[in-house]
Amino acid sequence: MDIKAAVAFGAGEPLKVETVQLEGPKAGEVLVEIKSTGVCHTDEYTRSGSDPEGLFPSVLGHEGAGVVVEVGPGVTNLAEGDHVIPLYTPECRQCKSCLSRKTNLCTAIRSTQGQGLMPDGTSRLSLNGDPLYHYMGTSTFASHAVLPEIAVAKIREDAPFEKVCYIGCGVTTGIGAVIYTAGVEPGANVVVFGLGGIGLNVVQGARMVGADKIIGVDLNPERKAMAEKFGMTHFVNPNEVEGDLVPYLVDLTGGGADYTFECIGNVNVMRQALECCHRGWGVSVIIGVAGAGQEISTRPFQLVTGRVWKGSAFGGARGRTDVPRIVDWYMQGKIDIDPLITHTMALEDINDAFELMHKGESIRSVVNF
Amino acid sequence: MDIKAAVAFGAGEPLKVETVQLEGPKAGEVLVEIKSTGVCHTDEYTRSGSDPEGLFPSVLGHEGAGVVVEVGPGVTNLAEGDHVIPLYTPECRQCKSCLSRKTNLCTAIRSTQGQGLMPDGTSRLSLNGDPLYHYMGTSTFASHAVLPEIAVAKIREDAPFEKVCYIGCGVTTGIGAVIYTAGVEPGANVVVFGLGGIGLNVVQGARMVGADKIIGVDLNPERKAMAEKFGMTHFVNPNEVEGDLVPYLVDLTGGGADYTFECIGNVNVMRQALECCHRGWGVSVIIGVAGAGQEISTRPFQLVTGRVWKGSAFGGARGRTDVPRIVDWYMQGKIDIDPLITHTMALEDINDAFELMHKGESIRSVVNF
Repeated sequence: MDIKAAVAFGAGEPLKVETVQLEGPKAGEVLVEIKSTGVCHTDEYTRSGSDPEGLFPSVLGHEGAGVVVEVGPGVTNLAEGDHVIPLYTPECRQCKSCLSRKTNLCTAIRSTQGQGLMPDGTSRLSLNGDPLYHYMGTSTFASHAVLPEIAVAKIREDAPFEKVCYIGCGVTTGIGAVIYTAGVEPGANVVVFGLGGIGLNVVQGARMVGADKIIGVDLNPERKAMAEKFGMTHFVNPNEVEGDLVPYLVDLTGGGADYTFECIGNVNVMRQALECCHRGWGVSVIIGVAGAGQEISTRPFQLVTGRVWKGSAFGGARGRTDVPRIVDWYMQGKIDIDPLITHTMALEDINDAFELMHKGESIRSVVNF
Repeated sequence: MDIKAAVAFGAGEPLKVETVQLEGPKAGEVLVEIKSTGVCHTDEYTRSGSDPEGLFPSVLGHEGAGVVVEVGPGVTNLAEGDHVIPLYTPECRQCKSCLSRKTNLCTAIRSTQGQGLMPDGTSRLSLNGDPLYHYMGTSTFASHAVLPEIAVAKIREDAPFEKVCYIGCGVTTGIGAVIYTAGVEPGANVVVFGLGGIGLNVVQGARMVGADKIIGVDLNPERKAMAEKFGMTHFVNPNEVEGDLVPYLVDLTGGGADYTFECIGNVNVMRQALECCHRGWGVSVIIGVAGAGQEISTRPFQLVTGRVWKGSAFGGARGRTDVPRIVDWYMQGKIDIDPLITHTMALEDINDAFELMHKGESIRSVVNF
C-alpha cells in the first residue's frame, strides 16, 4: 500500500516527505495507522549522523500512537480498532530476558531490529522499488507502520493520541527510571541532572512516589519554572555554585542523595551524579546517551563505600505490561504530559521539530497526522 | 597495664615486638585479651607504606578473636568472660547509616577511627610515654586491646579462636559480599576474579547459597585445587585463554555472568568483571582495594543495558548482628575455614606472615598468643 512517510536519505540531511510503499502484516504482525508521533533526541542522533550504527535511507520515529487497522495470521493479543503504542523495546514474555524477571530488555527480535529489518529479515518499506530501512522497529514518522505483535502495547481508547504518544519513549523513560530501575521510595532525596524532556519526567516520577527533596540541576535557568510545576523543590544552576558542584549537592541533600539521575548524556556529569550520592546506599542511574566511544570513570572507593552505579533503558519498563498503566496514570491525573508538548505540526513540517530542538525552544514536538 | 604488641614504627619497616602500655577501658568500652589474630593484606598495605593515610608508630591488626577481661562503666551488652571478635566496622544501631537499613557502614566512630584514636579522641597505647596510634579501631597485633562496646561482636564460646578470628575480616568480606551485597540466588552463575583469601570465601559463599556455575579466574594454577575444594566448578587462567577474556567468560556463562566479584584490587580486572556480566541484570561487585588514585572506567552503555556496578566493604555485614551468625555457620559446617589457615606462628614471628604473603605461599597466617 502507499503511505506517507518522512524519509531520512542520508546523515545530516533534512527529512523528505514522500509517498512510500509498505507491505502489509505477515504472521504475528499488525498494521497500525499512526495518529501522532513525538520527535525525540534519539531520532536526531541518527538523522544527524552521530549514531555510528545509523542506517540510510530509512524512516525514523519511535514515539507514536495509533490504531490497529489490520492483523496478520496468528495474532492473538490485538484486533482491528485497538488503540496502541508501538514499542521499540518489545516484550515477548518468552525469551531469557523476559523470563528473568530482572530486565525489560527483551531480546526476541533484537538482531533484526538493529539491522533495520522486520523479524523475518526483510524490509517492508520501499520507495520506487528500492528498500528503505526500518528504525528501532517502529518507524513512526509515517502514516502507517507494520509491527510485530510483541512490539505493540494496547492502551485505553479514551487516551488522546497526540499526548500519549509521548509515553512511547520520553515519559516512560523518565518515570520508569524512578519507579522500575531505581525503586525510589517515599521520603527519598533525589537529584536530577538535565531538565529536558527526560529530566522533567524523572522529576514528576519522583513526586509521584513521594520523594522529599527533588533537586533539579541545569545550566538553563529557563527550565526552573517548568520543573517546579512538575515537582522540583530546589533548582541548582552549576554556573552559580561557588566551588565544586559535588560537595554542594552533598551538603544540600544532608550527606548525599539517595538517588540521582543523569538525563543529559555527558560522561563528566555522570561522574558527578555518582559522586554526590550518599555513602552507603546512594544509587546513580544513567539515562542519557553518551557520544560514541566516550567512557565514564571514578575511583572504585566510591563503589566500595556503598554507592551503586546503574543505567536505565526505556525506564526499565516492560512495554506491553507497563505502558498501558502509565497511560492510565496520565488519564487519572497522577502524571502530567500536556505542558511538555510545546509544539505540534503536520508531517510536512517535521524538520521544524529538529530546528526547535536545536534552539532549545521545545521540550517535545509532536507530529499529528 | 603492660601488654605485648607488634609495633609498626615506620612505613616499610618490619614490625617490632615490644612491651607497650595500654590504658584500661573508659565508659562504653571493654578490654579484650586477644587469643588469635589473622594477618591480612590490609595490614600489609599500611605496613608497607602504600596506604597514603597510614599512621606511624602504630599497632596494626584487625582480624582478631579473644575474651573480654574488663568492662568499663555503662557497658550493657558485654560482660567479663564473653568470647568476642573485634570489629573494624562497628554497629551502633543508632546512626543514620545503621538506621537506614541499607548499609553496614556505621558512622558512629568513623572520624576518630580514621585518625588512629579511640572515640574520645585519645590514644590508649603508648611506649615509654610516647603515644602509639590505634589501627582500624582494633589493633589486634597485641595481647590486649581496648574497644568500644559497639565495635565488638559476641560469639559462642565453643568456637576456636585460632579459626574464627578469620571471620573478623576475610571470611565475612567474601561470604558477605555474596549474601549481603550481591544477594546471589540459587541457580545463579558467578565469576570470581582472584582466588586468594577473599576470593575463596566468595567461592564458598556462592556454593552455600546454591549458585550453579562458580567460575574462578586466577593467573596462578596452584589455586585451582583449593578453590575446587571450596566449590569452584570451572577454573580459568587468563594466560591460557586465546583472545579476549571477557567474551570467553560471556560464552562460558551462557550469555554473561549473573554476578561477578573482583577480589584483587586491579582496576583493569574490575572493568572485565563488569563487562562479562549478563546484559539486563548482571551485577559486578568490587571487593579488592585499588592503589591510591587509580580509577575504573567503562562505556556507560554497559550500565544503560542493565549491568550494575557496586562495591562491598566488610561484605556488607553488620558486625554485631551478622558476625555471630557466620561463626555459627562455621560451627555447623556450612562453611569451611580450616584449610585457609595455612600457617600459624607466635607474635614474635609475625614478620614471617608478611613474607609468606609476598611469596604467595600462604592463604592466611594466624598469630596465636
